[in-house]
Amino acid sequence: MLGVLGGMGPVATIDFMDKVVRNTPAERDQDHIPMVIRLATDIPDRTAAILGDGEDPLPAMRRALHELETDRVSVIAIPCNTAHFWYDELQAETSIPILHIAEAVADTLPVGTDCVGVLATTGTVKAGIYQKTMAKRGIHCIFPSDDEQAEVMRAIQLVKAGNGRSARKLLTHQADELLRAGCDAIIMACTEIPIALADAALAPKLIDPTEALAKAAVRVCLAERTPLAA
Amino acid sequence: MLGVLGGMGPVATIDFMDKVVRNTPAERDQDHIPMVIRLATDIPDRTAAILGDGEDPLPAMRRALHELETDRVSVIAIPCNTAHFWYDELQAETSIPILHIAEAVADTLPVGTDCVGVLATTGTVKAGIYQKTMAKRGIHCIFPSDDEQAEVMRAIQLVKAGNGRSARKLLTHQADELLRAGCDAIIMACTEIPIALADAALAPKLIDPTEALAKAAVRVCLAERTPLAA
Repeated sequence: MLGVLGGMGPVATIDFMDKVVRNTPAERDQDHIPMVIRLATDIPDRTAAILGDGEDPLPAMRRALHELETDRVSVIAIPCNTAHFWYDELQAETSIPILHIAEAVADTLPVGTDCVGVLATTGTVKAGIYQKTMAKRGIHCIFPSDDEQAEVMRAIQLVKAGNGRSARKLLTHQADELLRAGCDAIIMACTEIPIALADAALAPKLIDPTEALAKAAVRVCLAERTPLAA
Repeated sequence: MLGVLGGMGPVATIDFMDKVVRNTPAERDQDHIPMVIRLATDIPDRTAAILGDGEDPLPAMRRALHELETDRVSVIAIPCNTAHFWYDELQAETSIPILHIAEAVADTLPVGTDCVGVLATTGTVKAGIYQKTMAKRGIHCIFPSDDEQAEVMRAIQLVKAGNGRSARKLLTHQADELLRAGCDAIIMACTEIPIALADAALAPKLIDPTEALAKAAVRVCLAERTPLAA
């Protein structure tokens, strides 16, 4: 059974569930993967904590994690890029495997990928979430410059405020810049970004971490269902 | 905290969560309603059981209900019209209030409503889920004839198979017939129906029970948050 440590934010959790359901081969309700989803909306803001001026979200994340243990889930997913700053602390708390969103993304990259561009919150960038995972695989990460990163944050705020059109223009420009700088693919490492950056020309180069995490969860849960031959 | 007895089917549960989130006044993640959602995909088919040729889904629903009790939720919603056939048995099992989808719909009807048309699965129709609730309020329910009900079922199957366009034609015709027969509003009492029946001319007369249930859940959960003045 899949456990979801969700609520960061609620819309991203729903988007993740939708992607799990759409990626599950199913003809009837009973073919779907059983899940327990905890929408733990009491978890303080992650980016604020990473940037040093917010309450520590780890205690509330730990509480939700232990509740998922009580629920006897067999694998856990956290559909929030920034929350993976605390991945090691959370995994150290439990023997239940927690899927890592950046590992799930790395698993989807074609062989021969040398360099990825990352569009994310400043929290995710500063936390080094993608840098650490990609470095282990010999993949280099590139980011917008500080000034351009401020534009990425502005675009994320525009999406949250419902102004996807203006956000799209800003994000398309940033994505073009990263491609010009030589990356093979662009990771849309904030749940607001794919909502705005649906660009036909860029699409083959864009990677949605929520989709990658959903596919990884489906793979693990379907493998549980099929007993291995002796 | 809202508990969701879900998975009947998974897409309907996700639609319900989305409607809860969209109906919650919130500016930040922390303003949202905390939820535990159990996607209990082991619950056997409800319509098959009502029509007398399927496994009893009540034991699996009871298990999920008791797990929500362990989760210490304060109110429970079941985003599936047909599952309400077992509402009384489920409510008798627990002291936690379970919202009733037909009561939530009835609460949204304008004063003076005399007659509602119901488009639903044959299971929901035979189970009398809407008839019982509306009768208590002096509201009469009308349904398609047996032949026309078979067309409604065909439309629901078409939506499940991804053919919304053909389903829309069938459902618009059935809705028009019910309005011609004198109903004041039409209840789209199966989660597949609102997906196909988005018709601008009919819209003011259409009621979506998932939306009504979501609004009822938000109302109860927000009232929990605001302590009453002494």
